[in-house]
Order: sequence, then structure tokens, then C-alpha cells
Amino acid sequence: MSIPAGDGVARSLDPDNWDEFTRTSHNALDLMIDFLRGVAEGPVWRQAPPEVQARFDAPLPHDGQDFSAVIDIFRSSILPYGTGNLHPLFMGWVHGAGTPYGMIAEMLAAGLNANCGGRNHIGIEVERQIARWAAEMFGYPAGASGLFVTGTSMATFLGLLVARDAAVGHEVRRGGLKSDPQLVLYASSEAHGCVPQAADLAGIGSAHLRLVPVAANGGIDVDRLRIAIRSDRDAGHRPFLVVGTAGTVNTGAFDDLDALADVAHAEGLWFHVDGALGALAILSPTFRPRLKGLERSHSIAFDFHKWAHVPYDAGFLLVRDPNLHRATFAHPVPYLARAPRGLGSGGTWPRDLGPDLSRGFRALKAWMTIRTLGADRIGAAIDRCCAVARHLEGLLAASSSFVPAAPVHLNIVCFGLRGRREEALLEPIVMDLQERGIAAPSMTVLDGKPVIRAAIVNHRSEERHMDLFVRELEASRQRLAGTAC
Amino acid sequence: MSIPAGDGVARSLDPDNWDEFTRTSHNALDLMIDFLRGVAEGPVWRQAPPEVQARFDAPLPHDGQDFSAVIDIFRSSILPYGTGNLHPLFMGWVHGAGTPYGMIAEMLAAGLNANCGGRNHIGIEVERQIARWAAEMFGYPAGASGLFVTGTSMATFLGLLVARDAAVGHEVRRGGLKSDPQLVLYASSEAHGCVPQAADLAGIGSAHLRLVPVAANGGIDVDRLRIAIRSDRDAGHRPFLVVGTAGTVNTGAFDDLDALADVAHAEGLWFHVDGALGALAILSPTFRPRLKGLERSHSIAFDFHKWAHVPYDAGFLLVRDPNLHRATFAHPVPYLARAPRGLGSGGTWPRDLGPDLSRGFRALKAWMTIRTLGADRIGAAIDRCCAVARHLEGLLAASSSFVPAAPVHLNIVCFGLRGRREEALLEPIVMDLQERGIAAPSMTVLDGKPVIRAAIVNHRSEERHMDLFVRELEASRQRLAGTAC
Repeated sequence: MSIPAGDGVARSLDPDNWDEFTRTSHNALDLMIDFLRGVAEGPVWRQAPPEVQARFDAPLPHDGQDFSAVIDIFRSSILPYGTGNLHPLFMGWVHGAGTPYGMIAEMLAAGLNANCGGRNHIGIEVERQIARWAAEMFGYPAGASGLFVTGTSMATFLGLLVARDAAVGHEVRRGGLKSDPQLVLYASSEAHGCVPQAADLAGIGSAHLRLVPVAANGGIDVDRLRIAIRSDRDAGHRPFLVVGTAGTVNTGAFDDLDALADVAHAEGLWFHVDGALGALAILSPTFRPRLKGLERSHSIAFDFHKWAHVPYDAGFLLVRDPNLHRATFAHPVPYLARAPRGLGSGGTWPRDLGPDLSRGFRALKAWMTIRTLGADRIGAAIDRCCAVARHLEGLLAASSSFVPAAPVHLNIVCFGLRGRREEALLEPIVMDLQERGIAAPSMTVLDGKPVIRAAIVNHRSEERHMDLFVRELEASRQRLAGTAC
Repeated sequence: MSIPAGDGVARSLDPDNWDEFTRTSHNALDLMIDFLRGVAEGPVWRQAPPEVQARFDAPLPHDGQDFSAVIDIFRSSILPYGTGNLHPLFMGWVHGAGTPYGMIAEMLAAGLNANCGGRNHIGIEVERQIARWAAEMFGYPAGASGLFVTGTSMATFLGLLVARDAAVGHEVRRGGLKSDPQLVLYASSEAHGCVPQAADLAGIGSAHLRLVPVAANGGIDVDRLRIAIRSDRDAGHRPFLVVGTAGTVNTGAFDDLDALADVAHAEGLWFHVDGALGALAILSPTFRPRLKGLERSHSIAFDFHKWAHVPYDAGFLLVRDPNLHRATFAHPVPYLARAPRGLGSGGTWPRDLGPDLSRGFRALKAWMTIRTLGADRIGAAIDRCCAVARHLEGLLAASSSFVPAAPVHLNIVCFGLRGRREEALLEPIVMDLQERGIAAPSMTVLDGKPVIRAAIVNHRSEERHMDLFVRELEASRQRLAGTAC
């Protein structure tokens, strides 16, 4: 198509000088590749000094500035002060480590700038491909429906809504929740905070989530679950949902998903699985058997940004019954009506499967990562994380100062100090390791006692890093115990 | 830090050959820069042929493949089949057009791969900077709290939850909604579908959203709003929220936000503004007066991916009272406890202001875009979109075939064909223009009648593109009218 150039050409927001933009962009790419190649050599974390923080307390800029100057600020004041989760000695919380492939995929997605809320374009097809891959991985029917969201917390909330509608009918969308009978749901006492949060957001209330105690293996006590359901029915409540956990946040324990599927099916409840930590362990031949029963669930929440190392964020909801999924969220409005052909055509749009009309092209980074690495290599990296965690467990068991505080089910090692008196040293030790830039574990509480928690999620973490970690734990302990004396 | 390299080095998911990765990545960057430089020259949209779609219906790959081969698939099978919203003749729905700067920003964010759910790192500071800029733009107090989300639909849902808690107390998070008294909310009949959706997701029910008729200017009829509130109070219901619209989805009309603020304050209701389409018009001196009263609202939902042209997705929620915001979402759990120092420190985390624990670094692309372009240039581009829309309106008014169907309040032009009989041609004309790759308007319904809708959101759109558009509309009309005869 040839349109004579108007005088407005220079007024778009595109670069006035494309050659300069091209040079600056290639420099920025080299900066990032150098960063990624050397990420293990730098400190795991450093505190941004006040003068750096002050750069982000400026008034709204009315005028622009050279893109290369903005990149320079990124280089000096942002790049050195990230979360640290790319470093092999980052073990805090549960963070994926990313890959260089994911970085390029995000560049491509942002350049293409597709809105994957709907319409007839390739972004929708790529997202459907990921849903089919997820269905294949988890043993769901091929027609299961899937949707990218931010993370597992959002996916669990949306899963709860599909369960709500399945239980009480889609009229609830118009009429709202009724207090009588009261909807109630179930999960283990070790379930992630996103489960009570989902009940809160949905207006059901987190107090109507029954936190069933766990058995010795860290998984939900299924007999006590059955008793809780009976008790709620006797009280006139309406049980509708049981949430199984594939990998608890504190210790990586698994619920017996097969037993939960039995209970859910017998009781007519929706069975949702929170697989944020452990669902992708299905790619590991070692851990796959732990997930038996997952294939019988009604919905699964998980994410690609942890153990598939896709850049943040890339959560996913998979729902067995695509019709129930669609009926929970589809919302016919004239400005989104489907056309027979053209851009406005295309059957079910992601917009019909969740609340977002504006959605980035998250599927691209997941697709490129899986195509480039292959599912088996991702599974092998998961295996390796768990082996590294067991190595750390062994080092701690052999240590005269530290001691494991819980079984290592998967990739999470919780530990304390031998000698109850020294408990108060744990958090100072963690902060010391972080502030020295050596390692970044985090803290949690097990059985009412503070413990250090090391979650090995990083494909760059190796046994030798754990050797160093335990040596430095001991160094921090001695330093701080000395200070305390 | 020096750790002897283990034999596991090659087993990470990083490239085995960094030099090859570097070459491929620079080629991918050049591919995208060429694409962006030439975006106006290609077709606005093309249908992906079946053999291309079939590439995304493959089984889960167990083995990986060369990254350069994956990039080749992107080049041949994804890049040509996007949404089309970068093209100056894309006018469908309401889509931002992106910028090359945003593409690089996303690459940097994905390489850094920060999880902006929380912790002490620079990503959190940059997000706070955007919240302060948003507060400054919209006339909120400097301490207002802000949060990136996917889009305005999600931001409006979260805003409704803050309003819910402010109305009935935070105990609702545990205890759930009570049916009596029934919560009710208000918006105009032209409000976006995300408003009833928010009531649906929250369990209040979309039927408890009162859709108040609009006045002749397309804005909510404030007298009828007052009557509706009184009537609900008389019926024993509990009004709690009024949602104002800054730019309706169909015609770009504005509610009288100042009058809505008066009503909300007099009635003790939360005043939330859906600013998806029009809030950023505050950057334009021409349109700023339309937003008078916005500064008196309690919360604003808007996004940076439309008129700030930040890549998808980049929605934002701004809340005047940070304590109410935090109290609606903060959820103390031991694995997210705050430490006095180190990575686990840092006061309010984004995780305390919304449901997401895993969140990408959306703030970076917004920050880099605004720093590079400056707020005034973004405002000028908004002005220009509206001027281009008025130019289109003028062309249509002068056309013997087409006729504007609604006043052009902002940047949206709805139009039909002169002569009622020809109404059935509208959708075929839209599809024809899309399929020919010439232009991409969309369809909507006004006053029960189908109309073509052209939303000029693109900084690349100029008057000369509208001249071509109207010529090609006429060509399509003649072709299709001929076929129909």
C-alpha cells in the first residue's frame, strides 16, 4: 500500500533517528547478555543505596531524553539491584531463574505487541498450543481449556470461580452469592495463602475454607477431610470445592491427589490442584508418580515462571471442562461480538475464559522456551534441583551447628540451629548472608518455630554451591554468635 | 566469589554456546527493528493460513532444537500474523500501538527477571515511582498507593474490593458477603463490561449494578443516579460504590466526574473511575478539563498499554487511601514475613496491594517509555489521535454513502451507511477491509443498530490514512453492494 508521506511522519512516537535507536538497542542487548553470562560471579543481592533509590523519586518528566541516556540509568541504577533470583545461590522464597531464551522471546512479544484478549491472530493459536501441551502433560482431555494469567494465585482464584458456578449454577453471576446455604471449601493446613485469598476475593470469606490437618508426610489427612465434609453437611452448609496441593510452600510436601480425587468424586465436589511448586515435577520421571491423581482433577493452577524458567509472569489455569470454564467468564457485549470472518472472528477468545480483555502474549515465551529446551531437559533440571536439595540436606545433617527441620520432599530444605537457645540467630544469619551478597535463603515458620528455608528452584544451582553455602552459614553463625556474646 | 566449576556447568538451561546465542539474538533484534520500521507498509492484518496454524497443533516436544530454528518459526509463522495494532490503519477495538522503546524495555525486564510481588529490590522502587507519577498526573495525594495489574478490567475488580471493604469492614475478608443488606453499585448504561464483571467476580452479582441512563452528551444522568440511590436505600439495600467512566467504550463520552464526586461524597459512596479509554487524556491540555472531578475520586483504573503505548499488558490501579488499599489485600503468612534488613525487608510490598505474589516488572516498560518520550509528547500524540478522529468524522459527514452515527467526543468515530436498507452491508465491509489488509475498524451496536467503529489510538495514524480509509470504505461498499444485487 502506498500512501504519500504526510508532514506528520516525524510526530509519531517512533524514533526520530532509527540508526541511533538500532545502535543503542544492540548495545542494550549486549549489556544483558554480558549480565546473564556473568550472573554467577556477582553478588546474589545488594541493597540499592539511597542515592540510587532517589533516582526513582523524581517528578513526572514533561520532556523526554535520549534513549541511550535512559539505558544508562538502567545500567547503573536498576540492573545491579534486582531480586537476585538468577544467581545459583538464590534460594529464597520460590523463584524461577529465567533463561536467555525467555529474554529474547519477551522482546519479540513486546515488539509484536499483540493483545491476546481475543480476535483472530496467531497469538491466540500459540496460547491454545500451550493449553494442549498442558493437557498432554497432566493427562487431561485434549479439549481442556487453558488460560495464561499472572500467577498461580490468580489461577486459583479463577478456578474457584469455575467451581462456584459449577456448584450453584451460572445465575450466581447475576444474582450474587447467597449466605444460605453457606459455600464451604477444603484444603490442608499447609495450603498456600492463595487459597484463603481466593475465598476472600470471591466474597465467600476465608473463614469458610476448612484447613484440614496434615498427616506425618505433610499431605492432607484424608480421613479428617471426610469428617469435615460430613460435619459441614450436617450443619446445613454446602461443600463445593477441595483444593489439593502439589508441593506445599513450606516443605514441598504433596497431598495424596489420588485419594483427594476419590473424595471429591464421591462427594460431588470440584477438585482443584494448586501446582505452583510441584505440578511441573510431572516432567521428571523421578517425581511423576507423586502426582498420581492429578489427571483426575477438574482444574489445575500452576505457572511457567518457576520450574519452567519462563520470565515473570506466566501463570496458567487449566480446566477439564471447557464449557464450564467459558460459561463462568464469557460476557457478551456488542463491542466484542464475533464476526463470521476477519479479525473479529475466531470462536472462544481468551477473554471468554477469564477477566482480562487486555493481555500480553505470555504464550510466546512459554512456547519458545519449551521448543528450544524440550520438555525432557526441563524435567532433568527439576530432578537436579531436588538432588541439590538432598545434597544440602546431607551437609546440614552432618553439620555440628545446623540441623534439618523437616523432611526434604522435593526441593525445599528447612533447617535450624542445633540448640534451642540459638534460634534468635537464624534471621540475623539470613540477613548477613544476603547483605554479604553470598547467598539468599529466606525464613519461614514450622511448627511454631522459625527456620531457614532454602528452595532450590534454579537450574544454575549445583552441589558445589551448597558446599559454599554451608561453609558461609557457619561463618555467619560464628561471627554473629561472637557479637551476641 | 570464586567457586571451582563443577562438572554440572553444562547442565544448566543456559546456552551451551553463548557466541551462537549472541549472534542469533542480534539477528532477532534486527528482525524486529526492520518489522517496526516497515510496519506501515505491510497489510494491517492477514489471516494465518491453515498450514501455519497447524504448526501450533504439535505434540509436546520432548527434545529441544536450535534456538535459531525456533526464531525462524517465529519469523515465518508468527510475526506476519499478529493483531495488526501497530499499523496506522488499525482502528478496531481500542488497542495501543506500542513503541520500539517499550520493546527494548521488555527485553531488559525479562533478562533481569525480577519478581515484583515483593522483597527489597529496585523493581519495587520503580513501581512506586510510577504510582507517584500517576498520583501527580491525576491530582491525588503523593502518598496514594498504586499497583500494576494486567488491565483496567482487573484494576476495576480490585478497586471494587477496596470499596467493598471500606463499606462493610475488613471482616468481610474472613466472614464473606452477607445477602442482607444487599450491596448495590452504580454506573452508566454506557459503562464498560468490566464493571458488571467486577460485581460478578466479587460475588455481589452483576444484577446489583444499577445501569443509570445517559444524558444526551453520553454521560451518566446524575439526577437519575440520585433517584436510583434513594430508591435502593428505601428498599433496604446498601449502596456502596459509583463507577464513573472517563471515555465510554462505544463513543468516548465522559461522565461528569465532578458531579459524580459530589453525589458520592454526599451519599457516602466510594467513587471509582474507569479511565481505560480516557484517563490519560489528562496529559493533553485540550482534554484535561473533561476530567475535572477525577482528582476527587477514591480510586482510578487505567492502563499504560493504550494511550501511553507501553507494550501489553500494563494496567494500573491507583487508590487514594493507601491504608484501605493495603488492608483489603495484605495477608500475613510466615513465608512472606518482613525482615528488619536484607532481601526480606521493605515495608509495603505490591503483594500487599493485590492478589499476585508472582508479578513481572511491568513498571520498567512504563518508566522507560515515559522517561524517553516525556509526558508532554505522549499528551500531544493523544491530541493528535483526536484530531485525526475529527478529520475522519468530517470526511464521513461529507460522504454520500457513509454517515457519522454519534458525536465524536474524543477519538472514537462510529458510523453507518446512509439509507437504512444498507445496514446489513456494514459487517461485510469491515471484514472486506480487514481481509484485503487495508484497514481494521471493528463493529459495535449503538441504540440497537449496528455501526462501524473506528477508535484512533495509534500514534502512527494521520489524516492521510483516514483519506485512504474513506476511499477504501467506498470501494468495499461498491463491490459488496454489487455482489448483493
